[in-house]
Amino acid sequence: MSGGRRISILGSTGSIGRNTLDVIARHPGTFEVAALASRSSWEVIANQAKLFNPAFVAIYEEESASRARDLLKGTGIEVLDGVDGILEAASTARADVVVSSIVGAAGVMPTYAAVEAGKIVALANKEALVVAGRLITEEAQRTGARIIPVDSEHSAVFQALMGQDRTAVRKVILTASGGPFFGKSRDSLSRITPEMALDHPRWKMGPKVSVDSATMMNKGLEIIEARWIFDIPAERIDVLIHPQSIVHSMVEYLDGSVMAQMGITDMRIPIAFALSYPERLDLSLDPLDLAAVGRLDFYKPDQEMFPCLALAYDALRRGNGIPAVMNAANEIAVESFLSGDLSFTGIADVVTTVMDDPPDFDDQTLSGILRGDQLARTAAREIITLMDS
Amino acid sequence: MSGGRRISILGSTGSIGRNTLDVIARHPGTFEVAALASRSSWEVIANQAKLFNPAFVAIYEEESASRARDLLKGTGIEVLDGVDGILEAASTARADVVVSSIVGAAGVMPTYAAVEAGKIVALANKEALVVAGRLITEEAQRTGARIIPVDSEHSAVFQALMGQDRTAVRKVILTASGGPFFGKSRDSLSRITPEMALDHPRWKMGPKVSVDSATMMNKGLEIIEARWIFDIPAERIDVLIHPQSIVHSMVEYLDGSVMAQMGITDMRIPIAFALSYPERLDLSLDPLDLAAVGRLDFYKPDQEMFPCLALAYDALRRGNGIPAVMNAANEIAVESFLSGDLSFTGIADVVTTVMDDPPDFDDQTLSGILRGDQLARTAAREIITLMDS
Repeated sequence: MSGGRRISILGSTGSIGRNTLDVIARHPGTFEVAALASRSSWEVIANQAKLFNPAFVAIYEEESASRARDLLKGTGIEVLDGVDGILEAASTARADVVVSSIVGAAGVMPTYAAVEAGKIVALANKEALVVAGRLITEEAQRTGARIIPVDSEHSAVFQALMGQDRTAVRKVILTASGGPFFGKSRDSLSRITPEMALDHPRWKMGPKVSVDSATMMNKGLEIIEARWIFDIPAERIDVLIHPQSIVHSMVEYLDGSVMAQMGITDMRIPIAFALSYPERLDLSLDPLDLAAVGRLDFYKPDQEMFPCLALAYDALRRGNGIPAVMNAANEIAVESFLSGDLSFTGIADVVTTVMDDPPDFDDQTLSGILRGDQLARTAAREIITLMDS
Repeated sequence: MSGGRRISILGSTGSIGRNTLDVIARHPGTFEVAALASRSSWEVIANQAKLFNPAFVAIYEEESASRARDLLKGTGIEVLDGVDGILEAASTARADVVVSSIVGAAGVMPTYAAVEAGKIVALANKEALVVAGRLITEEAQRTGARIIPVDSEHSAVFQALMGQDRTAVRKVILTASGGPFFGKSRDSLSRITPEMALDHPRWKMGPKVSVDSATMMNKGLEIIEARWIFDIPAERIDVLIHPQSIVHSMVEYLDGSVMAQMGITDMRIPIAFALSYPERLDLSLDPLDLAAVGRLDFYKPDQEMFPCLALAYDALRRGNGIPAVMNAANEIAVESFLSGDLSFTGIADVVTTVMDDPPDFDDQTLSGILRGDQLARTAAREIITLMDS
């Protein structure tokens, strides 16, 4: 690594953010922390700031920001707040790399700001490209911002494309663990509780991503993300169930070669890669021991069992802001499921219903799309209320 | 492909040679055949010449050459003979790429000649690097010759290194099908017949390579080949049994990422890649269908069951021409096994005995090494005669 790369982490208190700080802590001199940002976790972010000494932290909620300000008194670390604070963390001249790991549609504007500022964007927030893929990738081309995926699947595809003949790509093959309900009967899905959905067999993740993984909407969002990051149409993106989550994803070429990236299930691998690209760091993790793993299985996904996969392909084909509508409806549905107000299978039902009669909005501007996102949320909430009564 | 690449094929009548011509036939305009060479198969090579219209063919055996000359009368295709003919095919100014696919130590001098002439060398003859790895790779550095492996394993490693951080390579992991006797008892090995050894479960290959695959000496030779092609020490080259032969080999990086190249078992894939590198051709082969394959298994190799693997590591560590000695003794032992004069387990016994008391020779020159090769062959023959009596 030439010189210390300066990192700003949007969503530093979440799972990706904490793993990012772990990677940085293991490589003193290679990285320095420029800024940290969080929605409201003032105590955690203040402790992170004391350890990593960024120039500033940004907390969206004003009250939380003021509490963090008290904790950081005397450290010289400034605390910004509100949307402006988050956007400053996304675009600050003090950072070379912006880790975009705010969960959900809340990450769209900060991601856009980082791209607008021409940063290297280590992208974990998949909703940014789901909601505003065209706008963000066009802006990246204009500013020279480089988007490096942090999702293990997209990182694998990114790595399987490096140095290869890009004109010879036939397919991108995203692997999916199948989530905790792979192989279960369709019947049993309606009885799934939030606790069951949060118990993912391979990856430890936040609640939203865990539920998305269980419905396979996570894979649906990844299909849309892949379409934008790798500029490849939906019909050339396949999904393959791979319960062991060792092959993180693949690229098939015209000659029949399939390049794959494998590894243990540790998010620090794709995070470190995005931070240090094109170099690789020695992470001192346990190596992948394929003889100990023994076997790798692969299955075609059952799209009837997991309707969210088909919804994502449908949204991508329809375009015109429909992916944003799908994502917004899904976020509301997952919230309702987690709070006990919606069944597991109800999630896909709500998304389907909102997509069947989508709100009307301008998908050519970020503000238009974010308005569409709000309209779709309102529609989803109304549908859930109707289902309840 | 920019312009038609001109290809010379050494060993055009063998398995790799015929597959190379198949790839060329499927891509008219992309390639043209500059020269064809064979030991003695005058009828086959004459037919190949009529189809592909090279400037000349070279046949090592003079009588076979003169028969081919009769068959090619009036075509304007010249027929060369002897060592000089083969070396002309290896170094002709008419060729951009030389496919080196003569089997065994007979391929060493032609391979060296192609490297000396600064060609792109599509290398299928692994003995060249086993016997004279240092001389050939040093000569390639001097002339700018580029060695692109045709072996499926080395092609996979080559592809898994493309565009990657070469300073971050931790290990090269060669996969091995385990051959037809994987999982058999150690006892039963002594009763193996040539017919059993030639029936490889995954790849259709010539008899020498099939027997080497059954003893795993093939993998031993590949370890030595990998050491020279990828400039990586023996202790960082691992072997993993993978019966399905779908993952053709892998590279493990310091960050824990493992890049793998997969595909169906069709030699045209690595052959075409070596011919068209860095581009990839549409070979119109059946795609790899991992869901149909279902599962991929991996095991640590049993070095006691397959002593040839340990012999190869030992030869590589000892250096000083010992790999050439090992290879020569193995060629004689395999010949004797195929003609019914040596048992299957006798192959490793003969190689071990020759390596225990190796002949003395100069390993710093090609002629010295080739003399060592002859001395080791004589020693092997003597040992086999002694075992017989």
